[in-house]
Amino acid sequence: MKLETHTKHFTNPLYLESGRILEPYDLTYETYGECNDDKSNVVVVCHALTGSHHAAGTYENDIKPGWWDGLIGDGKAIDTRKYFVICVNVIGSCFGSTGPMSPNYPTDTPYRMRFPVITISDMVKAQRILFDQIGIHKAHAVIGGSMGGMQALCFAIEHPNFAKKHLILASTYATQPWAIAFNKVAREAVIQDPAFQDGNYDTEAIRRDGFPGFAIGRMCGHISYLSPWSMQKKFGRDYVETDGLYELFGKFQVERYLDYNGMNFVQWFDPLSFLYITKAINIFDAARNYDSLEDSLSRIRSQIYLYAFSSDMLFLPEEMRTIEKTMHNIDKGHLVTYREIESNYGHDAFLVELDKFSHMITEALEE
Amino acid sequence: MKLETHTKHFTNPLYLESGRILEPYDLTYETYGECNDDKSNVVVVCHALTGSHHAAGTYENDIKPGWWDGLIGDGKAIDTRKYFVICVNVIGSCFGSTGPMSPNYPTDTPYRMRFPVITISDMVKAQRILFDQIGIHKAHAVIGGSMGGMQALCFAIEHPNFAKKHLILASTYATQPWAIAFNKVAREAVIQDPAFQDGNYDTEAIRRDGFPGFAIGRMCGHISYLSPWSMQKKFGRDYVETDGLYELFGKFQVERYLDYNGMNFVQWFDPLSFLYITKAINIFDAARNYDSLEDSLSRIRSQIYLYAFSSDMLFLPEEMRTIEKTMHNIDKGHLVTYREIESNYGHDAFLVELDKFSHMITEALEE
Repeated sequence: MKLETHTKHFTNPLYLESGRILEPYDLTYETYGECNDDKSNVVVVCHALTGSHHAAGTYENDIKPGWWDGLIGDGKAIDTRKYFVICVNVIGSCFGSTGPMSPNYPTDTPYRMRFPVITISDMVKAQRILFDQIGIHKAHAVIGGSMGGMQALCFAIEHPNFAKKHLILASTYATQPWAIAFNKVAREAVIQDPAFQDGNYDTEAIRRDGFPGFAIGRMCGHISYLSPWSMQKKFGRDYVETDGLYELFGKFQVERYLDYNGMNFVQWFDPLSFLYITKAINIFDAARNYDSLEDSLSRIRSQIYLYAFSSDMLFLPEEMRTIEKTMHNIDKGHLVTYREIESNYGHDAFLVELDKFSHMITEALEE
Repeated sequence: MKLETHTKHFTNPLYLESGRILEPYDLTYETYGECNDDKSNVVVVCHALTGSHHAAGTYENDIKPGWWDGLIGDGKAIDTRKYFVICVNVIGSCFGSTGPMSPNYPTDTPYRMRFPVITISDMVKAQRILFDQIGIHKAHAVIGGSMGGMQALCFAIEHPNFAKKHLILASTYATQPWAIAFNKVAREAVIQDPAFQDGNYDTEAIRRDGFPGFAIGRMCGHISYLSPWSMQKKFGRDYVETDGLYELFGKFQVERYLDYNGMNFVQWFDPLSFLYITKAINIFDAARNYDSLEDSLSRIRSQIYLYAFSSDMLFLPEEMRTIEKTMHNIDKGHLVTYREIESNYGHDAFLVELDKFSHMITEALEE
């Protein structure tokens, strides 16, 4: 599989939904496979909150493959012998695209909290501009899970002539208070930690000394990504062997897992990107700027494929069904396919239960 | 309704499950109604994590009634014209019974983190000793929700001749990793906050200046007490009117609710009690010290009534069903009644959806 990573610099202003402007800005993206002559084989993959443009393949001298490597590659569900796959790091993120820690032009100092609030719609708009610049005006499909699914839905509504198919996994039509509450705990844990320093944290210092609040925020996220059943299966009530049951800070294995993942997160993600992207997720509402969800979904002209996971505790299957039902209500039922995938893996199922749904992705793409 | 509040001082050692000793100790309790001559009308009510002995009635110059006031009182489901109701503040708590901020005898300084880890079994044992002291050797029923349900189950297993009936609401046979994970986030938020000062916090200072980590811990708890549906109903995606949608720290109503409840919590609960009681909940396992759950439940000689709530996101109905099924497996099916109450209110339903189940409580008590 041919893998290329690029960063493109834009000097034209990006007009944001908030009325603010981002100028200049960069977008980092990755491509897998090769574009055919008529450019009809493009599949856009959209990443989730802490994902990046590195969706597939393994870099030289690296161990960990891209976050959807099981799905994207030669002979895989999104077959890179057939499709030209592009994944763009969203604006606001911290893996090469412009985000809060990027220099606030014309100065060299990072925006930090002067960075504008961005929306899912802004992320998608920036991607469209990038695609235009690299000569891609149409796509075969747009696919994403979680926040990636929000982007895919947004592509379908706001850019109805761009792609023929939109595949949305483990996502929603508008973030519900339950998900906002999880984000709230995480965001507060970040903001209230003295290490945050009102956004003026020293990145090297927090990576060296830790940032407990950011770790706690990640732990809270992990609860919502898992499920009672996946935790039961993975950890049960196993206790850390070297800890005493009657020690106040003795730990269960599930606690050790959360500790590890929380502390590790500080090493590879940026706290302000976390705040900006969770904000974008919180305010995501496919009906905003339209009269209603009906009105908004009525713009869609492409095939919509919805994949919900039965134990998803973050974006419930019923939220995905709302999209399906609304499509039916507005006589667009022929455009929508809803699948509920039985899984105990919670929200994370879209990343880890590939065996259960990769054939559905293949089918949808080939159909 | 006759309401009395007492605190009893014990100078005999309380032998704890951990092997440690608590000596001396106090227990604060409240009674409602009057004990009949043959002492056959006692109903023991057990409180949850942040509850107290003040289960019913309203104190003079106070507005807020006890936490189960809708259920306990003259003519109510637990009718105080008929029953003599007792509710004891658990050891480890902070409303009068001995806890981590009580003086570490013979000094006047509080135990703080020198306080021993206590268990649900210890809480129950202390209550038994108190009841013996005040001449109550039998009860008609023991009832409790959440951690109160753990105590009720523990009463049934470890003191099988004490009460005729045990009513367990919104609880479990052993705390599962999902609930431990919520507690983990809350506990870390407390411990990692500089205000905690390794347990040496100044209570007046934190009530005056706040304790963000403790507030965040409470917020995390609130997520698990509610449900996606109760949040949807209560808050929807309503935004605080005076906040801008594109302000990074602009708030949804659900966020304001969490902020308010988090900050308020610091005013009335103690951080170390929170750590000790969540620890007791985490390590609760009705099968500990027995060969298995079957072995443990085989001690039961009383009627067991289980009330689960369909949308309980903290202790799932299936956990309550495990108790029912296990009772059947050991030929004690005739002793158990399981009811699943349809409710969107999540775990909190045992406190707020009284209309849906109070008649069941009456029936169980009268049966």
